[in-house]
Amino acid sequence: MRLLIPGPVTTQAAVRAAAALDYAPWDNDFRNLIARLRGRLLALAGGRPGEHTALILQGCGHFALEAACRTLVPPDARILLLKTGQYADRFERLAQEIGRTVIGLPIPDDRPADPAELHAALAADETLSHVALIYSETSTGLVHDVPALAAMAGSLGRRVLVDAVSAFGALPVDIGALPMVDAVVSTTNKCLEGLPGASVTVARTDRLEAAAGRAGSWSLDLHDLYRHQLHAPGVFRFTPAAGVLVALDVALGLLEEEGGPRARLARYAANLNALYDGVQRLGLRPYLPRAVQGPIVMNVHAPGDPAWDLQLFVDALKRRGTLISNFHNTLRPSFRIGCIGAVTPDDMRDAVDAMGAALTEMRVANREAA
Amino acid sequence: MRLLIPGPVTTQAAVRAAAALDYAPWDNDFRNLIARLRGRLLALAGGRPGEHTALILQGCGHFALEAACRTLVPPDARILLLKTGQYADRFERLAQEIGRTVIGLPIPDDRPADPAELHAALAADETLSHVALIYSETSTGLVHDVPALAAMAGSLGRRVLVDAVSAFGALPVDIGALPMVDAVVSTTNKCLEGLPGASVTVARTDRLEAAAGRAGSWSLDLHDLYRHQLHAPGVFRFTPAAGVLVALDVALGLLEEEGGPRARLARYAANLNALYDGVQRLGLRPYLPRAVQGPIVMNVHAPGDPAWDLQLFVDALKRRGTLISNFHNTLRPSFRIGCIGAVTPDDMRDAVDAMGAALTEMRVANREAA
Repeated sequence: MRLLIPGPVTTQAAVRAAAALDYAPWDNDFRNLIARLRGRLLALAGGRPGEHTALILQGCGHFALEAACRTLVPPDARILLLKTGQYADRFERLAQEIGRTVIGLPIPDDRPADPAELHAALAADETLSHVALIYSETSTGLVHDVPALAAMAGSLGRRVLVDAVSAFGALPVDIGALPMVDAVVSTTNKCLEGLPGASVTVARTDRLEAAAGRAGSWSLDLHDLYRHQLHAPGVFRFTPAAGVLVALDVALGLLEEEGGPRARLARYAANLNALYDGVQRLGLRPYLPRAVQGPIVMNVHAPGDPAWDLQLFVDALKRRGTLISNFHNTLRPSFRIGCIGAVTPDDMRDAVDAMGAALTEMRVANREAA
Repeated sequence: MRLLIPGPVTTQAAVRAAAALDYAPWDNDFRNLIARLRGRLLALAGGRPGEHTALILQGCGHFALEAACRTLVPPDARILLLKTGQYADRFERLAQEIGRTVIGLPIPDDRPADPAELHAALAADETLSHVALIYSETSTGLVHDVPALAAMAGSLGRRVLVDAVSAFGALPVDIGALPMVDAVVSTTNKCLEGLPGASVTVARTDRLEAAAGRAGSWSLDLHDLYRHQLHAPGVFRFTPAAGVLVALDVALGLLEEEGGPRARLARYAANLNALYDGVQRLGLRPYLPRAVQGPIVMNVHAPGDPAWDLQLFVDALKRRGTLISNFHNTLRPSFRIGCIGAVTPDDMRDAVDAMGAALTEMRVANREAA
């Protein structure tokens, strides 16, 4: 089955094979693998040894975002959040549930955030101490220019947290060039093309050091995790999804072989182009204009034909070997297709062919937006 | 490599193979698998549909213990904790870091806790509202009689939390028979013989319903997780380690085929017996008397010979295909061997042979306790 969802993604066989062995996470060989893996992740994020550190936390990207917010954002901080879509809404909720204050800056859902509007919001309210940014908004398919937005926030003296969950591994991340970015949070899956089951946070060591006792949670305390790694490199505090981490190590090797994030982004962009072209050829309406459509996930307006039914469409595609999301999280009804994972433009063209066949089978004639 | 550590354990090939595929956790087939898996876990714990529910949380057993404590223990509660060893210490720390009050009842590390001493402690302090119990203390190798201890606490009107992380799947768990037990927490690994990467909590639904807004964490809120499952059975809030969960489903099938927890416990007890006999034959000194030694993990006194070195011993065993823990967490120096996982008494005898060869190679003559 070809997974065309924005995660978990299709992975290469070598990645999955690494997860199909038993590992002892406290064994010296495993410790060495994790220490090396952390170094690779740090380098991939543009982190500087000593100034930054790469931390692996059990769970998922959401857990790491909560951990970063708990650990790095003081309770009296005021976080300006760019309200870019559902993943921004999620950040707002996770921050509020741990008692942090979030002030939302609404961003239209049909264009990337403009650094000028961030500048205006920060200039207008000096009490805003932090900025939270979603790099790739999975709900809309928009990619926001986080390097520019983070640099703008930093130039105004604000600390920055970046949700790079569906970005890291493909979109440019260079935390070393952005000294006001406290942490970039991602997952072992998605654009890294590993398996789901853990998360990756690259953070400033000085900010971690200053965060002792702040998290209010042992599980989700990045300060404690960092101190533990300093004391015993590569040793986990609690049992990790060991196979997922070995699989990530293999996946990072494949990312290097591909040519790094730049080459991966080019492949994802080619995937998106093949998909966008094909969708238009089928008479379907993309949700976003091509100029602002990001390369990670694409939404397509649900056809206006009364024969349209998302679940029937998903099932018809599944019978043809392609799996897409069976829900939408845009304001208007849509369906969405992921462009990430170990898939190529040929896969996208096959998927488009399957969509055409499915629509014919379902007798969906009117393919204009519902 | 044969893993003889108290987790992650050796698993069967069919379990690992299930983790080596890509899965889409929001797909209907996967939702159905998770809904069925939750039903199987509920039944395995003796839970009653409606009265109890089985919840799967990303991460590890420790995360689920924190989630259970956050969700089910009110901030003004006073928790009596049986201080049975390092895992009790861990519970104390996790509870304190989320602002809960823990009162420790010291239990000697060479015998199981006595329900009479729990009775005395509870009778002496009516302000104690909750009791936290560690079923299998991985640090000492002692198994505590949680059914009797929980019944005693319940008879005195106290609510109970059970850490069954290295117990569930082998030691008896019947939450349906213990109405004062709010939750039993475990992992997908260890005695269930699945892979690590998620946790299992079986909890009372009335206590979950009463816990809205209490957790102070979205990630670790079992109330929210429960409500989400009610609303959309089998659907995760955040991306899970999908392969680990399919592997758990396979592992539960193998547990049934084996004859259930009773048969599994018998195999583990046979493993322990083969190990205990063999260790004594080698002239080594078990840490615990046989009468109180549990079937999950065994500690052996480090030999007094100056040639003894734990890491060299671990490396020598590893060259012979057996992996044991490379640290000890007993008061006196020891080494420890797990008896759980997809291993048999023959594996334990092979491991004992390897130990004998390793000690000879290391020229460890004096094998009495250091």
